[in-house]
Amino acid sequence: MIKVGIVGGTGYTGVELLRLLALHPEVELVAITSRGEAGAAVAGMFPSLRGYVKLDFSDPKDAPLGDCDVVFFATPNGIAMQQAEALLASGVRVIDLAADFRIKDIAVWEKWYGMSHASPDLVAEAVYGLPEVNREKIRSARLIANPGCYPTATQLGFLPLIENGCVDTTSLIADAKSGVSGAGRKAEVHSLFSEAADNFKAYGVPGHRHLPEIRQGLSLAAGREVGLTFVPHLTPMIRGIHATLYARITREADFQAMFEERYANEPFVDVLPPKSHPETRSVRAANTCRIAIHRPQGGDTLVVLSVIDNLVKGAAGQAVQNMNIMFGFDECAGLSLVPVLP
Amino acid sequence: MIKVGIVGGTGYTGVELLRLLALHPEVELVAITSRGEAGAAVAGMFPSLRGYVKLDFSDPKDAPLGDCDVVFFATPNGIAMQQAEALLASGVRVIDLAADFRIKDIAVWEKWYGMSHASPDLVAEAVYGLPEVNREKIRSARLIANPGCYPTATQLGFLPLIENGCVDTTSLIADAKSGVSGAGRKAEVHSLFSEAADNFKAYGVPGHRHLPEIRQGLSLAAGREVGLTFVPHLTPMIRGIHATLYARITREADFQAMFEERYANEPFVDVLPPKSHPETRSVRAANTCRIAIHRPQGGDTLVVLSVIDNLVKGAAGQAVQNMNIMFGFDECAGLSLVPVLP
Amino acid sequence: MIKVGIVGGTGYTGVELLRLLALHPEVELVAITSRGEAGAAVAGMFPSLRGYVKLDFSDPKDAPLGDCDVVFFATPNGIAMQQAEALLASGVRVIDLAADFRIKDIAVWEKWYGMSHASPDLVAEAVYGLPEVNREKIRSARLIANPGCYPTATQLGFLPLIENGCVDTTSLIADAKSGVSGAGRKAEVHSLFSEAADNFKAYGVPGHRHLPEIRQGLSLAAGREVGLTFVPHLTPMIRGIHATLYARITREADFQAMFEERYANEPFVDVLPPKSHPETRSVRAANTCRIAIHRPQGGDTLVVLSVIDNLVKGAAGQAVQNMNIMFGFDECAGLSLVPVLP
Amino acid sequence: MIKVGIVGGTGYTGVELLRLLALHPEVELVAITSRGEAGAAVAGMFPSLRGYVKLDFSDPKDAPLGDCDVVFFATPNGIAMQQAEALLASGVRVIDLAADFRIKDIAVWEKWYGMSHASPDLVAEAVYGLPEVNREKIRSARLIANPGCYPTATQLGFLPLIENGCVDTTSLIADAKSGVSGAGRKAEVHSLFSEAADNFKAYGVPGHRHLPEIRQGLSLAAGREVGLTFVPHLTPMIRGIHATLYARITREADFQAMFEERYANEPFVDVLPPKSHPETRSVRAANTCRIAIHRPQGGDTLVVLSVIDNLVKGAAGQAVQNMNIMFGFDECAGLSLVPVLP
Repeated sequence: MIKVGIVGGTGYTGVELLRLLALHPEVELVAITSRGEAGAAVAGMFPSLRGYVKLDFSDPKDAPLGDCDVVFFATPNGIAMQQAEALLASGVRVIDLAADFRIKDIAVWEKWYGMSHASPDLVAEAVYGLPEVNREKIRSARLIANPGCYPTATQLGFLPLIENGCVDTTSLIADAKSGVSGAGRKAEVHSLFSEAADNFKAYGVPGHRHLPEIRQGLSLAAGREVGLTFVPHLTPMIRGIHATLYARITREADFQAMFEERYANEPFVDVLPPKSHPETRSVRAANTCRIAIHRPQGGDTLVVLSVIDNLVKGAAGQAVQNMNIMFGFDECAGLSLVPVLP
Repeated sequence: MIKVGIVGGTGYTGVELLRLLALHPEVELVAITSRGEAGAAVAGMFPSLRGYVKLDFSDPKDAPLGDCDVVFFATPNGIAMQQAEALLASGVRVIDLAADFRIKDIAVWEKWYGMSHASPDLVAEAVYGLPEVNREKIRSARLIANPGCYPTATQLGFLPLIENGCVDTTSLIADAKSGVSGAGRKAEVHSLFSEAADNFKAYGVPGHRHLPEIRQGLSLAAGREVGLTFVPHLTPMIRGIHATLYARITREADFQAMFEERYANEPFVDVLPPKSHPETRSVRAANTCRIAIHRPQGGDTLVVLSVIDNLVKGAAGQAVQNMNIMFGFDECAGLSLVPVLP
Repeated sequence: MIKVGIVGGTGYTGVELLRLLALHPEVELVAITSRGEAGAAVAGMFPSLRGYVKLDFSDPKDAPLGDCDVVFFATPNGIAMQQAEALLASGVRVIDLAADFRIKDIAVWEKWYGMSHASPDLVAEAVYGLPEVNREKIRSARLIANPGCYPTATQLGFLPLIENGCVDTTSLIADAKSGVSGAGRKAEVHSLFSEAADNFKAYGVPGHRHLPEIRQGLSLAAGREVGLTFVPHLTPMIRGIHATLYARITREADFQAMFEERYANEPFVDVLPPKSHPETRSVRAANTCRIAIHRPQGGDTLVVLSVIDNLVKGAAGQAVQNMNIMFGFDECAGLSLVPVLP
Repeated sequence: MIKVGIVGGTGYTGVELLRLLALHPEVELVAITSRGEAGAAVAGMFPSLRGYVKLDFSDPKDAPLGDCDVVFFATPNGIAMQQAEALLASGVRVIDLAADFRIKDIAVWEKWYGMSHASPDLVAEAVYGLPEVNREKIRSARLIANPGCYPTATQLGFLPLIENGCVDTTSLIADAKSGVSGAGRKAEVHSLFSEAADNFKAYGVPGHRHLPEIRQGLSLAAGREVGLTFVPHLTPMIRGIHATLYARITREADFQAMFEERYANEPFVDVLPPKSHPETRSVRAANTCRIAIHRPQGGDTLVVLSVIDNLVKGAAGQAVQNMNIMFGFDECAGLSLVPVLP
């Protein structure tokens, strides 16, 4: 059993971490912090946790985070970069679910996130927590930058093609659709039920913060800077991301077989049979990414369909997967979740 | 490990049984039947089960149901009553998720279900599988009539008041709201997304099949025939039942304490603190019933709010709970499910 | 053509008023105020109005409201009571869509709304704008208190029974369900898509502000104080209210005929044939209230089902109906709206 | 006033035609046919039409369609091609909302629609009813092939770029998302609420029937065969299509100005200001197409966002627009509809 703390437990990634960790066989939850809710029962705010989480929220300054083996940051961007250093110095490992340590180029990060970085040195050390790419580095990492939701779905869909040099990497297109929980539990007009229900829209087309993160990952795989058009959309569902990816073929191959081989040993990536159309609900509440590959009308454009639950494989589930790898647990511990359908 | 079979695995209660049984530590799934889908992979129809359920659907006549320790019927009404007898004779225990064995008065059953009953003798033997009422009888039962969804939410909400003789049982009102999955996975116009979404309606007000079932249960508790007005409604969500129950007080008591005591040892009934408003999502995908008690404006009318997931505590989860009791397993085995929120 | 102003045009009742008034044949829109959005194009905030509304939001202190024939207040509670007097003194008629003038008993209003009333004299003068009750008074009114959404659906459903003295008025029950737009366009966590979608809950069971308003209207009809239990619920749809009303019969009558006669000349109340179940979508975006009457199982409890669109007959549409009556227009002018289905 | 008939009034395009035609100032509805519902009141099936449509459904063989000035076919594919000829011979003009006359190449049509064509000669005569392209031909047409929903949104978004020769037409990409009403009012499992809600998926990626229709329209504009990858998706909303279109720039231009000029005189195409993100709800229940143009990160890929209501500009509204043009009415008659938001 390891001791686990969570900084910022009042958002959707926080409550999802709690859902997963509450039943994790190797985990003892010791602290969940919230400045605003300190002293209140966690299960009072989230009645779904009644009977499973007995802790109260603790004030960040009182919480015994230094005694933990690992601390998750489920905070807004800009918090973990201020607190990670002290925890690491105390021997606590850190998994940041926000974006603070995801982008290696500090100037790029500062431009897209609109603040100056408090811990540039830690950015260099941090391991980007996409197990399907960095499993070995994750094992020994002290600090994990847990990937974003769009970046997870998009990279897993594009990687086999790029690693094998089969597509034109100068003009990749990622048309991605997210459920509304991706916007978090902040009180904002555009996330209201009456604004987001029975409605569909693109947003952030001029530029979205996940663009540089995806571009970094794909460029690493390509060995050169890729060109990517990334268009996120908001769809009226709670959970789920569906990435529809377009790439022009430059080298013929058996693409179905290529994906199956690439992910043959991955416990959380499921390549569907040919002609499949993965649904977001087929991964609802589970840590799985399901992928299908199409070549419509036998043309020169490949279409990859990639779905995840944005709160699980796109956030809290992947964070637990990273924790499992870091501590030598079964990678699936606490993550054997049958998707909830319907 | 016991051997388990499912008759009729293509509906929502079927796939929900599979979700729960796939991870149950004491269960080996040996057969799932479907006349129409025989030979097809179960996980082909329900990709959410990929990696968890390897079975193909088998033809009912070929399936090794006689070798099972228990068989669940997740079939339309009228099937189990024809097949249960043979299975019981082979020593197989049976849990029927449909309505065939729920109503003790055969004439009443035949009137509401519009068919003549094929096994009236078994109706007499069958145990109504509401563990909070019949736990001891369930232990030794060969045949369980698993309660309906509305009846589960409604009875659990009314029972403490009726058992304690505190309310006027001649004019109970149950105003219940169900998610659309309650209508099953049948292709019918009124269950289409474009019919049921962004819409709310009552249905079956002149008379709904769950009325006699609820009346039977409450009358047993009251020791006399109760008067009940039951109005079901369809609400645009997938899962969940919310029963709003009204009763006139005839004897004063500490109703909050009464409910807390009644359910103190029940693992799947959670009485909320005073002034609470349980949400259906607080039990989504879990086997819990949450209940709150109100006395608005200090008047003589009590309002009880009772929520369940219609597919879990209202169907498949309760069936697994009954199985656990029948076979002496931990009653919570396979049912430690943190509700999925958001 | 009359000159019309709107105070507070950025909420849902504001944009709905604009939708209706933009095409009203007798109306010229001259001002829409918003402190926060002054100077911005109305159609910039609500692109649905592009091509129909050319006005900019104006600052309340600059807006030519004194030149209007009528001013609508689509503001939070507590605003109209401060500004109505000056407008009335200038000869401008006022329709308040908020609650400031709905409750005749000032002490009751102050208790439920938590503020002291700024214009008690105007409360005495104000006419409660339910045309099916007060049409004649509305014709000559200077100041209209436009009814709340729950009160409209509930009163229209109960009134024929109470006016005819057919039911026990000491224990009426109104179980009402509202779409989320009823909570307004305020940024609040509980109205977020990810909180309200795929979820159902009661709220305000101990006491909701619409309770005294409904009680006042029904008591006037009864000629005595009525007893009412009112339980509002939130259902995951944008628009619509469904009130399920329960009353015990004290005098037999042909209730279907009673309702049909009561509303025979009402352009916006539609009594459905026996055994009907009105759907909220059957009135979506229209000013109609549809009602059905049931007597389940021939018992002594009547069940009345009453549906409206909370933003139309429950707010902006009824306000326009009141305006039509006040200015001697065809009562249906601008309100011939075929409901949008699906 | 013209006499109007509708063949097939029980689907969503049928009821939407009725919603629009019921208030059309130049239209007298004389017949609505349905084989299955003959004799039943139209407003009995669709209570939203109570008070607006008094007709009963008539049997197709008895309906006075030959006396009509125009007949709309709101039928499945393959019906209009069998009945149009006789109507045209009687001097009745015909608008087919299905696909029978949309594809000029009979072999292509027969391949995609899986039947042999009954009236190839009429295909040659039929005018493709996209007013923004064929307004003059529509004026004098006897037979209109009303465009599909995806083709309307996609063509209006791509046309300015293609007509002006600014983009590479060999690799156009249309990633389109539709509400569920696009699947019609047929009882099919995949359109059930519990299947389609809280879910997102692509479908028909190998090939969708709207692909050849879009390709035909764009190829005509380009003067050469275009290459198009078309991926439709199902999104959990009732109405609305959002097409996200990708094209590589081959010739620089002021694209915003280009779109504004192209549609300057179009009453139903609204080009939004730069940096806009049109929402489907901004056209809900209205005949408008709203378009925004983006060039993300200043790259060489243009992104065009185009939204319509699939049942209005994508079906019934466009059909009425065509009727208005054919009969010399104001093109907006009956179509001055403010979108319903929220």
